[in-house]
Formats: sequence, C-alpha cells, structure tokens
Amino acid sequence: MSEGRKAADGVETTTDGSARPGKFAVLGAVTPLKLDCGAELGPFTVAYETYGALNADKSNVVLVCHALTGDQFPAGENPLTGRTGWWDRMIGPGKVLDTDRYFIICQNVLGSCYGTTGPKEINPATGEPYGLSFPVITIRDMVRAQAMLLDHLGIDDLFCVIGGSMGGMQVLQWCASFPERVFSAVPIATTSKHSAQNIAFHEVGRQAVMADPNWHGGAYFRHGVVPHAGLAVARMAAHITYMSEAGLTRRFGRNLQDRDAFTYGFGADFQVESYLRHQGITFVDRFDANSYLYITRAMDYFDLAADSGGALAKAFQGTSTRFCVVSFTSDWLYPTAESRTIVHALNAAAARVSFVEIESDKGHDSFLLDVPEMFTVLGGFLDAAARARGLGAGS
Amino acid sequence: MSEGRKAADGVETTTDGSARPGKFAVLGAVTPLKLDCGAELGPFTVAYETYGALNADKSNVVLVCHALTGDQFPAGENPLTGRTGWWDRMIGPGKVLDTDRYFIICQNVLGSCYGTTGPKEINPATGEPYGLSFPVITIRDMVRAQAMLLDHLGIDDLFCVIGGSMGGMQVLQWCASFPERVFSAVPIATTSKHSAQNIAFHEVGRQAVMADPNWHGGAYFRHGVVPHAGLAVARMAAHITYMSEAGLTRRFGRNLQDRDAFTYGFGADFQVESYLRHQGITFVDRFDANSYLYITRAMDYFDLAADSGGALAKAFQGTSTRFCVVSFTSDWLYPTAESRTIVHALNAAAARVSFVEIESDKGHDSFLLDVPEMFTVLGGFLDAAARARGLGAGS
Repeated sequence: MSEGRKAADGVETTTDGSARPGKFAVLGAVTPLKLDCGAELGPFTVAYETYGALNADKSNVVLVCHALTGDQFPAGENPLTGRTGWWDRMIGPGKVLDTDRYFIICQNVLGSCYGTTGPKEINPATGEPYGLSFPVITIRDMVRAQAMLLDHLGIDDLFCVIGGSMGGMQVLQWCASFPERVFSAVPIATTSKHSAQNIAFHEVGRQAVMADPNWHGGAYFRHGVVPHAGLAVARMAAHITYMSEAGLTRRFGRNLQDRDAFTYGFGADFQVESYLRHQGITFVDRFDANSYLYITRAMDYFDLAADSGGALAKAFQGTSTRFCVVSFTSDWLYPTAESRTIVHALNAAAARVSFVEIESDKGHDSFLLDVPEMFTVLGGFLDAAARARGLGAGS
Repeated sequence: MSEGRKAADGVETTTDGSARPGKFAVLGAVTPLKLDCGAELGPFTVAYETYGALNADKSNVVLVCHALTGDQFPAGENPLTGRTGWWDRMIGPGKVLDTDRYFIICQNVLGSCYGTTGPKEINPATGEPYGLSFPVITIRDMVRAQAMLLDHLGIDDLFCVIGGSMGGMQVLQWCASFPERVFSAVPIATTSKHSAQNIAFHEVGRQAVMADPNWHGGAYFRHGVVPHAGLAVARMAAHITYMSEAGLTRRFGRNLQDRDAFTYGFGADFQVESYLRHQGITFVDRFDANSYLYITRAMDYFDLAADSGGALAKAFQGTSTRFCVVSFTSDWLYPTAESRTIVHALNAAAARVSFVEIESDKGHDSFLLDVPEMFTVLGGFLDAAARARGLGAGS
C-alpha cells in the first residue's frame, strides 16, 4: 500500500507574479503526478500556508487537511476573505495545535479553487481554464500532491496529520499511502468510505449545478457567467446535512423571519429559510462550481477498504501510527458507526488507537465549532504523542 | 376548533367535458371556500375517486388522504398513468381497506395537479392558468375542501379518515376541524408540525424550482416550457429524505451502474445516482412545478398546536374519535418522536389511542410499501372500530 518517498521536484513561486496571499510551489515539472484516473499532472501549483516554526530535526510538522470547501488558511485572519480562519479555535499559540510547539502546514487540495491547480486555473496547454478538461481526481491524488509538497520542503515525516470530514479522509489515506511518514493521525467526523446516502446528497448538488444553464457544460468562464443559482441550491442541500435536526430546532425552530405571521407567499417566512438562502448566496461568491463537482466526486469515490482488497484493516496493516478517532453524537452525515468501523479495522491491525464520541447537538459541523470536549480530547492526545516524539511543551 | 357542517353546495361535472378519468364536483359556487390566507375560492373543482359501495345508513365511509405528490387513484390501475395505484396494497376486496365493507373516497388535494383546482388549472377570471395568482393554501384548506365534497355527496360522517405523511396531517386536521364527523382516525408516518429540518429540505426544493429560468416566475405556461431541471433536482433531494440510510445501503450500497470501474467523470457511476436521476426525470412528467411549491408550503405552514393556542392537546379536546397512530423505526423525515408527541397530546385529551412503531428499514416511504406488520396492525384496528360502529365483515 505504501507509496514511499520520492525525490523533491518543485520550485517556490507566486503563480502569477501578483500579490496573491500565502505560499505557492510548482510541483511535478520533472516527474508529473500520476493520478488514479491514469492521467498525469505536471507541472502543477499547490497553494499552502504555514504557521509556527520548523524545529531543527524537522520532527514537529503537523499537516492540517481541510474539508470540501475549506482552504489553506485555517488560522488567524484569512487573507482572501478578511474573516477568521476556519480552525482558528484549534491553531495558535497555546491552542491545541500550538504554533509555539508545532510547525503547521495546510495545503489547498488538488481540484480546489484557492490557488492549487484545479478546474478554475489556467491549463497551460490551452491558455484558458481547465474546466471539465481537468482530470477527475481522488482523495489519494490529493494526498499524493501533499506528499510532493513535503518532499519539496525537505520534510520526511509528519508528527501529526489531522482533519475533519474530507480532511479526515485525507488523514486515513495518508496512513494507508505513506504509513512510515505519519507518527500520529487524527481523523475527525469522517468515514472510510462514502455511503449510498452520502453519494446521493452529493449527486443532488452536482445535478443542481449542472442543471443551471449558466454552467455551460463547465465552460462558464467562456460566457462571463457563473452557475450561481445551481451552486447555491447545491450548498443549501449540503448545508442541511452539516447540521443536526436538534440543532436546527434549537437554533431556528419554526421562528418567523422579521414578521409576526405567515405571508402566504414564497418568500423566506421562516428563519431557517432565510438562513439557508444566505448560506447559498454567500457560498457562490467564494467557491468555484466546477471545483464543487470535482471535490464531491473525489469524496464519493473514496473507499479505503476497496482500495485495499476489500478489508479496511489491510489498509492499516503493520502501522505504527498512533490514532485518535473522534466522532460526534449528532453527526448524521458521517455518524459514529462510521468511526467505529475505522476503529475496528485499526484494532484488527493491532494499531494504537483512541476513540472518543463527543456529545454535541451541532451535527457534522461540530468539528469546526466551539466544542470544548473536542479541544480537551485532542489536546491530551497530541500532548502525549508529542512527549513520545520527544517534543517539549510550547515555548 | 370545530368548523361544523355546511349546506351542500356543489354540482357533479367533468370539468372540461372531455373524458378525464375519475369523478369531479364543482363546489363553492354559492358559498365560496374561505381560505386561511383570507382569500375566497369558488367555484372550484375537486377531482376524486370512490371504491366500494355506500351502505344504507352511510356509516361505512373511509376518506383516504394522499401525500405530497399523490393522487385520487390509490387502488387498482391509475387511469392517468396505467400503473398500479399508490395504495393498492391497502385497498381492495379483502384487503385492509376492504372495498366489500367500506365506501372509500379519495380526493386530489386542493393545489395539486390531477384535476382539483390548483395553480395548473384555468383561472376563470383570466382564462389562463392560475400560476402564482393561485392563493397559498394550507392543510386546513385542503380539509375544508374535502368536507365540502362530503357535504355535496350527502355524507355526514366518516367511519375513518386515514393517510400517511401529508395524508396524516390531513387526518389530524380533520380530527381538529371536524371532530364530530370522524369515528376513527389513522395518521401514519406523520407529524403535528413541520420541523426546521423539514422546512429546510422543502425550501431547497422550492429554490431549485424557482432557480430554473424556465420557471418564469411561475408563468411557464406562457412560454411553452416547464422548469423540468429544477423540479427534478427538487424531487431528487426530497427522495433521499423518503428513504433510510440503511435502506439505501441495502438496496444500492456503492454498487456501480452497468460498469466495472469508475469512469472518472460526472456520469451516473453509482447505481444510487442513476436511481435518483430516474426519480427526478420521471417526476417531472407527472407533476406540476407550481403545485410542488404550493403543497410543500402548505406542509411547512402546518402546526396544529400553534393553531390551537400552542397546546396540541387542545386540538383534540373532547374528541370521541378512536385513533391509531403508526410510525416506522427508520423514518427520519417524521421520526417516531413526532408520533409520540401526537400520542401524548391525545392522551392528555383523554382520547382513545393505539400507537404502534413498526420496525422497517424502508424509511418514510414504508407506509407506501409492502410492510406486513402495518397491514396487520391497521387491519386489526379497523376491524375493531368497524364492529364498534356496527359494520359487519365484508360480504
């Protein structure tokens, strides 16, 4: 299963010579990335950000993997949006991912739209955006691109790879593809394979995008439009799956929005309607519709057991990685049963594994929110792993 | 709460003089239907069908209420589609709703598109379809239109009112609006109010329809098009909520559709994708997009407790109706907790109530499917109620 290490093959760059924030590297110019679909990609750009400082023996590297619509700026202010990073609660001095102790890397995944090569970026062969000519990628391809970045940075091993949702899939894939490079792994609110229901919700989103006439078969860039309506509907449908029924009831219930009585019309009478519409509209401003198709597809294709001959335990055979698996009680997108499946496979592979199901009514999105028990659990696990790795406490 | 009885006000008709199947009545010509929104509707047409024979003292009438996209042809061959009726398992000689014993009436609900007045029908004031000029209706309005049909048919009392999902909402509304007319009531897989999550899913569907440029603000009939893409997406999203995660896994899992390996494209690689697309495409042929908006809105507005001053028990105060409440273990759209809420309110109102939660992995749609325990439970309840009502066994 292990894909081993490869020679460094990359140059640091700012893709377009402009003042795009964050760090960039052009990879695969000499040896292209061989994708699961059979295509080769290279040279290609990866956009990433780092926090903290690499220690002398390069033993303090934490790779943070983002979710479907995430980006490479989890901590502090996101320079693209001016808003607080998506995991700022987790990353910073004295926080769980202590930037005084760890060197944290976060890379925008392959196929995304925040600087890493994806359908939105220019295809050097044609001079226009890839659109649907971009090859369909997998979670394993994303992880390969991350490993290439580490090679480029001269980093052999990860102290920890950590992430929630699709980030957790990358964590699991790292442990299967590059087990010797991972000291500890934290897959949160995730699954080892997409279920029929998971695929079904993603397919609804894709159909919503592709049904929008502004999609133009993925070539909307040629028409100066974006399939905003379809992408907004896709986001609305997905967003429901990120929250729990109880959380929606607690937060919105049947409360009306800025009115005392029904309007007997099709406006946003209910707060929950107004909230969802807002989620859809704001998403369109920050995400590329084709990237949404590509990344949901990669998630649907994810099935770590199938990639290991049908037995998930085989994916982890001989692992010496320390695992901490975390799920949330109200997550119905990747319910605790999915984490249990992972834990059972890890147990069968005689891996070191901690498993915690955390009580929360915030649904799948709990991993992004203020859930103190999660910070306590992860802080304890990481501290113990750091001591085992010979990393002192933060300065 | 009771809305009492009104003088008959209707004529039997075949709306357009053509050979449209089923029965029709034009109601409200003298006294229009006062809708919850304040508007008055009349004259308007209701399309309905009957099965079995009315007995001499008119004591054997069963009103079957259909769900969101249902119709007035639950039994035998649906003359509109040529396919078997949606509750043919339940209705027929010797079946639970024994047509040798009961006189069964099923009316297409107000706002629907199978002959009863709704946004698709011609507005006599303008000579073109109502479209969005059709008033927004409620579950209570649907029930009022059913009561007007009974008045027109000279039927005072119902031996039973029965239905699943939105049909169950009508059942509950009947018991609140016309308690003295209902001997027994069977709300199945339903709720006394739409939750935030229920509303959220419906709002996604409405936004999908309204985002389709072919919707034309509801006036697509003027443009010779239908918002097929948006309506298909709406149906796909809704359909996921009708099935359980376990049911989807059992039926489809991650099986591929007519292929051995991923195509690395955006076709329907997975069976569940192909199935959902088929559900969306075929729905468009049989349902009106504006009706979908109106009926989902009516469901979202449904909140029987709010209509009774906040306490659900008040809706049933003084009732002498015999209730049988049925839920299904894997129904996550209207989970068993919603049925328990209804049962607790009925208990608080000192009503006669049986409650059964039936084990099924078929999700919300269980009420439409072959679930033998449901037939056993309902057959037993109805037989006991029929004996109490003095109705003999089927001839």
